[in-house]
Amino acid sequence: MTSSERVEFRTGPARYRHWRVALDGPVATLTMDVDEQGGLVPGYELKLNSYDLGVDIELYDAVQRLRFEHPEVRTVVLTSAKEKIFCAGANIRMLAASAHEWKVNFCKFTNETRNGIEDATANSGQTYVAALNGTASGGGYELALACDHIMLVDDRSSAVSLPELPLLGVLPGTGGLTRISDKRHVRRDIADYFSTKAEGVGGKKAVAWKLVDEAVPRTTWEKAVAERAAAFAERSSRPADARGIELTPLDKTRTDDRVGYRYVDAALDHARGIVEITVAAPAEDAPADTAALHSRGAEFWTLAMTREIDDLILDLRTNEPELGTWAFRTRGEAARVLAHDALLLDNRDDWLANEIVLYLKRTLKRLDVTSRSLIALIEPGSCFAGSLLELALAADRSFQLAGVFEDVEPDAEPAAITVDAMNLGPLPMGNGLTRLQTRFLGDDQALTAVRDAAGKPLEAADADRLGLVTFAPDDLDWEEEVRIAIEERTSFSPDALTGLEANYRFAGPETLETKIFGRLTAWQNWIFNRPNAAGPEGALRRYGTGQRPGFDTKRV
Amino acid sequence: MTSSERVEFRTGPARYRHWRVALDGPVATLTMDVDEQGGLVPGYELKLNSYDLGVDIELYDAVQRLRFEHPEVRTVVLTSAKEKIFCAGANIRMLAASAHEWKVNFCKFTNETRNGIEDATANSGQTYVAALNGTASGGGYELALACDHIMLVDDRSSAVSLPELPLLGVLPGTGGLTRISDKRHVRRDIADYFSTKAEGVGGKKAVAWKLVDEAVPRTTWEKAVAERAAAFAERSSRPADARGIELTPLDKTRTDDRVGYRYVDAALDHARGIVEITVAAPAEDAPADTAALHSRGAEFWTLAMTREIDDLILDLRTNEPELGTWAFRTRGEAARVLAHDALLLDNRDDWLANEIVLYLKRTLKRLDVTSRSLIALIEPGSCFAGSLLELALAADRSFQLAGVFEDVEPDAEPAAITVDAMNLGPLPMGNGLTRLQTRFLGDDQALTAVRDAAGKPLEAADADRLGLVTFAPDDLDWEEEVRIAIEERTSFSPDALTGLEANYRFAGPETLETKIFGRLTAWQNWIFNRPNAAGPEGALRRYGTGQRPGFDTKRV
Repeated sequence: MTSSERVEFRTGPARYRHWRVALDGPVATLTMDVDEQGGLVPGYELKLNSYDLGVDIELYDAVQRLRFEHPEVRTVVLTSAKEKIFCAGANIRMLAASAHEWKVNFCKFTNETRNGIEDATANSGQTYVAALNGTASGGGYELALACDHIMLVDDRSSAVSLPELPLLGVLPGTGGLTRISDKRHVRRDIADYFSTKAEGVGGKKAVAWKLVDEAVPRTTWEKAVAERAAAFAERSSRPADARGIELTPLDKTRTDDRVGYRYVDAALDHARGIVEITVAAPAEDAPADTAALHSRGAEFWTLAMTREIDDLILDLRTNEPELGTWAFRTRGEAARVLAHDALLLDNRDDWLANEIVLYLKRTLKRLDVTSRSLIALIEPGSCFAGSLLELALAADRSFQLAGVFEDVEPDAEPAAITVDAMNLGPLPMGNGLTRLQTRFLGDDQALTAVRDAAGKPLEAADADRLGLVTFAPDDLDWEEEVRIAIEERTSFSPDALTGLEANYRFAGPETLETKIFGRLTAWQNWIFNRPNAAGPEGALRRYGTGQRPGFDTKRV
Repeated sequence: MTSSERVEFRTGPARYRHWRVALDGPVATLTMDVDEQGGLVPGYELKLNSYDLGVDIELYDAVQRLRFEHPEVRTVVLTSAKEKIFCAGANIRMLAASAHEWKVNFCKFTNETRNGIEDATANSGQTYVAALNGTASGGGYELALACDHIMLVDDRSSAVSLPELPLLGVLPGTGGLTRISDKRHVRRDIADYFSTKAEGVGGKKAVAWKLVDEAVPRTTWEKAVAERAAAFAERSSRPADARGIELTPLDKTRTDDRVGYRYVDAALDHARGIVEITVAAPAEDAPADTAALHSRGAEFWTLAMTREIDDLILDLRTNEPELGTWAFRTRGEAARVLAHDALLLDNRDDWLANEIVLYLKRTLKRLDVTSRSLIALIEPGSCFAGSLLELALAADRSFQLAGVFEDVEPDAEPAAITVDAMNLGPLPMGNGLTRLQTRFLGDDQALTAVRDAAGKPLEAADADRLGLVTFAPDDLDWEEEVRIAIEERTSFSPDALTGLEANYRFAGPETLETKIFGRLTAWQNWIFNRPNAAGPEGALRRYGTGQRPGFDTKRV
């Protein structure tokens, strides 16, 4: 992939083509106004506020900036600048023309942004209100479903709808079915009927069926939206006088073989199909207090490192689908990592400290649902401690060197890992459990032993005994064991690995999120890949041609 | 499909080709001894105790008969008659040669049988013990995972393994991943490693990794198995003196257009792609007591009707994949249905009454995971009450006639449905909730109102108001509404419908079962359908040819 073909996730309000952000004290209005000619790749027009990945990249950026740059904002109103249409969902021609992996990756990213919207509502005191001033169909309605409150204009033409099944032969791809049943508690037979009715439902019926929260006449629309926004703002626990920090542009070097940032560096090995990622500990001591944290702002290590990992995940997922194995290393002083963790956790009542922890949580969740094999390599000089230990706990396998590399640095300190408070609660996975709880599901004794070891540097033998690493080879075996593990991984079916990892990474309870990424996404992937959708006569390909789809009617 | 090509699910011990049942007081031994030449369809040999659908049909029959015909059995030992091999799993050549819908349907049925084994252990006091007297690989190990206790002979060659991913590029298809993580609580990184190691793990390591419960030397094998079987039998609450009932052969008429039994009749409309199923109420009053219930045995209505529906589901799923919509009607006296329900529920401490309720539960679960659109048509003369009301509650949509058909029978009683105790607990879905709880998830008020209406016949207006039916059209609209609903259904993508239904039918909590049928199955379906598995260069097709598979290395 050449540099001009690579998708770029870094953006900012000055560069938005599809969204407008208006700030009015505690209320922000995010207005969707998609530029028809602004598609990310040629070949389609983004009519009727339909979106592609480029539109959603801007939305993600806007949601992030509202959290960090505008702590005064307590309600975010999502609305549209178009007449009679809120959003027509993902662009169909874009979907029809896309490769399977593009469709799946696009849906994953849009899902993550919508989960982030729900996280802002639940944990940041920024409540999202969908002000549907026109029809919201497909992904447009799914975006509304991610909001805490849905208002629909009651004008006998505006409706909400999920036309994917009747018109396209696919499922709503961004959590619609799960949110309808498990979040809004729409009765299953009504949900079934609604999801087959292409024209959708509006007005009082949409309210009675729990599809929206209120239907408001056009005459009182603006007043009602303003009132609702103010009421939600009242409920927020956000501090009134907080001042935001600027998410300054990420300093990034990107070539065919490397993605480099200040703290994160990734070497891309196309021949072997792997990425070797190294994350560096803070270069300086933790700030003394939250005042110093605020003044460091985007330079504060945890935030800077998280932004870099976030961008790296998105870049690699989208631009490097053939690099199927990611190996994580860390380097630097574990004590500094732990000190940064402690500052954040000791000050969760500070809005910025809280936001940083929440962002780290979301970024690690992004890693959990990434369809790449993840391996952690724990070597002397590394700092898998606290927040960085989560990278090893998120990995499918981890290797910790027992002792040191005798030929390289015989006097080095042996590799050690450290559990701290960051591993014991604040960074739950999508299943609602910490990575440690998931790891030791059904084995409370093991979990207690790990808790008791918190704060202590654990060399390989101890980490192995506690079940924190998969393998603990010594110097003699290290190179060959790691090489074989990686080579073997790259020899397996990429699809089977994706399925395996999607199952083993999420033991235990299921939540809205794990249902969306597990059950719903898996069915959608299957359907996307079937001739009835994507074949020459499939519904997705035939949409808009005037020809009816040709189905293999066999039920699977 | 001609009659000779249709798969037949009715069998009995005298016809088994692959299994032997030995009874010894409270211990039954079920010995797998697959006839290599006994494949269900030509083209493969069932070597090394590998299995196809025919082998599993016998297993299902044996499990059912042990429950009904042998209530004295408290422990079931699953073992093999082959040297050094317990079971090599599903036959690879069979899988490689099968159509996608065959593979998926085969996996679904085998999953249901394994869930039934767990149900016997949990609810019938028949504990299954896997006595692995040789290697158990793939589906062979998954069969062991469905047992409550796994013993593996410790002889330096016997192992348990899941070689699907490394050798075939697919996932273990019958719950293996879910049971390893969520039932046996194997640590995720160990599970990951184990699932990529084709040769598997044996001996003490298999015990340490929780893959088996004990590793027993050959010298003490038989003694240890007998001791364990006796110990589990001790724990059972089964009555000592119970006498079984015979599951007499089902009386069935099968033509291209009809499947008829005593209480259940199905009209197959190949032109419209639908099946019209009618279930009849008992022809006589309920027996007075459990003694009379036992003497009726397999003739007892609930059991007879359940066996018929069970066989019908299996027949239609396997033999009629193009009939995508099933419409359910009932006819007869609701009072008799309710009286049969009451007899069973008033006597749950009677082993046979208990078994019948459990069997009805499993059969309704089979309906829930059936990839067909289910519609209930509630008309005058019907008896959707209690156990039969579950058919309507399992449906994706239901229609209840308001009033009567004026032209047909103007003096008929209007259609009514009745909730009874059978709807309020004893028949949970795979998610652990009743169909009513699932239907009214998050709306306790609605559920309470339905509970309060238990026992009362509810005509359309009341049923509609209580949310128990989807639509309540009157005589003027009925025919057109129902026709349009069915015609529309058959015009949609069968795959998208399957995905939609698999999501909407299971709101709320996830369990081992829903994870297996939701998350795991969906991923497997996707993988089965990908060129990396099923394409000409795919791993599944190339297995055993000596050629390495060719993979598209892009991660999706």
